[in-house]
Amino acid sequence: MKGILIIADGLGGRPSDLAGETCLEAATTPNLDRLAERGAIGLVDPIGPGTRPGSDTAHLSLLGYNPYEVYTGRGVFECLGIGLDVKKGDVCFRVNFASVEESNEGLRVVDRRAGRIETGQKELEAALSKIKLTDVKGVEVYFRASTEHRGALLLRGEGLSPWIGETDPHETGVPIVRSVPLDRSDPAAERTAAAVNELTRQSYEILTGLEINRKRIAAGKPPANVILLRGSSELPHLQPLSSIYGVHGAVIAGGALYRGIALACGMEPIEVEGATGGLDTDLSAKAAAALAALDRYDYVFVHVKGTDNAGHDKDAQAKRAFIERIDRELIGPLVGPVEEGRIHIAFTGDHTTPIDFGDHTDEPVPVLFAGPNVLTDEARRFSERAAGQGGLGRFSGRVLPILLGYCNWSPKFGS
Amino acid sequence: MKGILIIADGLGGRPSDLAGETCLEAATTPNLDRLAERGAIGLVDPIGPGTRPGSDTAHLSLLGYNPYEVYTGRGVFECLGIGLDVKKGDVCFRVNFASVEESNEGLRVVDRRAGRIETGQKELEAALSKIKLTDVKGVEVYFRASTEHRGALLLRGEGLSPWIGETDPHETGVPIVRSVPLDRSDPAAERTAAAVNELTRQSYEILTGLEINRKRIAAGKPPANVILLRGSSELPHLQPLSSIYGVHGAVIAGGALYRGIALACGMEPIEVEGATGGLDTDLSAKAAAALAALDRYDYVFVHVKGTDNAGHDKDAQAKRAFIERIDRELIGPLVGPVEEGRIHIAFTGDHTTPIDFGDHTDEPVPVLFAGPNVLTDEARRFSERAAGQGGLGRFSGRVLPILLGYCNWSPKFGS
Repeated sequence: MKGILIIADGLGGRPSDLAGETCLEAATTPNLDRLAERGAIGLVDPIGPGTRPGSDTAHLSLLGYNPYEVYTGRGVFECLGIGLDVKKGDVCFRVNFASVEESNEGLRVVDRRAGRIETGQKELEAALSKIKLTDVKGVEVYFRASTEHRGALLLRGEGLSPWIGETDPHETGVPIVRSVPLDRSDPAAERTAAAVNELTRQSYEILTGLEINRKRIAAGKPPANVILLRGSSELPHLQPLSSIYGVHGAVIAGGALYRGIALACGMEPIEVEGATGGLDTDLSAKAAAALAALDRYDYVFVHVKGTDNAGHDKDAQAKRAFIERIDRELIGPLVGPVEEGRIHIAFTGDHTTPIDFGDHTDEPVPVLFAGPNVLTDEARRFSERAAGQGGLGRFSGRVLPILLGYCNWSPKFGS
Repeated sequence: MKGILIIADGLGGRPSDLAGETCLEAATTPNLDRLAERGAIGLVDPIGPGTRPGSDTAHLSLLGYNPYEVYTGRGVFECLGIGLDVKKGDVCFRVNFASVEESNEGLRVVDRRAGRIETGQKELEAALSKIKLTDVKGVEVYFRASTEHRGALLLRGEGLSPWIGETDPHETGVPIVRSVPLDRSDPAAERTAAAVNELTRQSYEILTGLEINRKRIAAGKPPANVILLRGSSELPHLQPLSSIYGVHGAVIAGGALYRGIALACGMEPIEVEGATGGLDTDLSAKAAAALAALDRYDYVFVHVKGTDNAGHDKDAQAKRAFIERIDRELIGPLVGPVEEGRIHIAFTGDHTTPIDFGDHTDEPVPVLFAGPNVLTDEARRFSERAAGQGGLGRFSGRVLPILLGYCNWSPKFGS
């Protein structure tokens, strides 16, 4: 029996979202409601009750890991997700292109996202391949651009440490932060911070004179003339899912972070044209790709990001509309295979992103399982409140292991 | 958004309490029922399912700590709550005044609570300030009397250890127990046990001849002529709540233990006239003080003890009546601010204290959250059984972190 796990990022909400209803409650979701009726629902605390999750820690927990034990930081997942080959000892970062101007305090940040640049990322990436550290010897720098202002970077060399401070000041009008070792008695952290500061300076020198930035300035746009680093981290120790369950999974995710987490857990990536990691993603293509992939894989993890984007943008109508698209274009094609008893499905979110708050909160998230081995409950629809009355009660994390359990792939603990 | 956490000690019960109903079920609680209707309810295992909580460990867990990691014993909280200045390295105890008589086995305990002495505690406290250890060098003794027969004591000096046995035999007709090191190869524990035995002997010598005890004996009452020590413990390592959540809280509690726990977690104490830690406490004054304190603090923790006292006394009518007073005098004034969307509230107990059993049991306790960010459930009243059907399901501990999450103060774990 095969399985599909779908995580709709930031799915859950609060009563304040839409006239006393959450976006999920306000959305018309006949396919999710039908699966709720044919399956069972409940509440999942992505990490644990009263713990406000990051996207990375929540996914680790939902995939069955203890994030308090294994989490090393976000940068490494961004690097993996973007296609960089991360090895033990590398130090990884997530990166923003930003706009800075010279001042007597140093490089002052004008825009942390360089106007969310739309094009030219490959040109910027190519230019940054010229970075060669000279003050710090024996450290190589690998950078890849991603969507808009985003990218990932890793340092490779002997004697590096992820225990350093980031350079992103998280506000504008202030200088770039100098990276510092978190422990001043650690020469590896000292060396890594020095490498970060040197590559930051070189990035400014390289990017400032580029044609693309001259054009941006001429067009009144902020130049992408420096990179800001955060999420310093090394490769986490994650037992591959295939070695735990003896089955093989694949990931379909537009966002680099989610693909990176799944790769770190041992899933294989499936590229889907039109999967953007945004509200404009092609959900029908994802559904078709997931079903097709079950010929080659035992399970598929599909991540959709738009729900979270709309939540961060505090746009209730966009979130509701995207949930309706998920129901129609992504869930719709899966109802048949579930009802025919051919697959199991799990659907949930990695956290709540209520409209009023515009960021993750710690409330539990509704979760749905359906398929031939799922005992049905009394649920007739899928929503936060319905899930509070659901037959699966409330539990923490581990949605993928539960799905694989329904598929009869759980390893026995004990004898 | 500000919050109030109310813990009614020993709130939960069993069907045996009152003609098949628990005291909470039998009580008329229109305000709690109204908040249940406007909010959401569920069951909380104070520490975890099937774990029978102490008051101290339950409170640590409800406040968001893992008691298995941080708990060092009760004495330190009694010392903090009573106003002693506890420093790292001090060894703390909770203390009973007791009545002993000389026998050929040593000092034999006649009454472990010296007849729950009503007055004269300050005179006894002043007398005990004369304790000067001479057999054990370099150890100072600090004692404070509390209500009735209760007090707290700490030892300060180099090379002490909390890993020693207590002197309280927990029964009468037997001698005071000699404190012994729990590990005989540990010189610090050897030294601390010797200090405890020396101060116990001195307490008998000092207290025996006191005017107050001569009068008690003349009146046919048991004298308070020795102190019994238990709950040996050192300062626990508790990350201050303010450093976790970035907000500041205050505690209103008549009982020293609860004030001490809250102080150890970084809350500030608010004194309320008439807050006795008993059934006669002034609940209206506590409600008014909590609301007033929200001008200066981000959240307030209010502890009420009478529910537990009545449970230990196996007095179902007293417990029911006290719950009705809580509803009227403490919850009543908070309904308006909750309904106006100005505050969030959490209400629960730290454990069950069923009438038949007269002590803590391990069943889960009903919990209620209300305020603008809480998704309502189907609940129409607040009770153990209603909570079992509540929309929040069942979870363990962490009621304060969940309340602070509704108030939008949770820190994100991960990115």
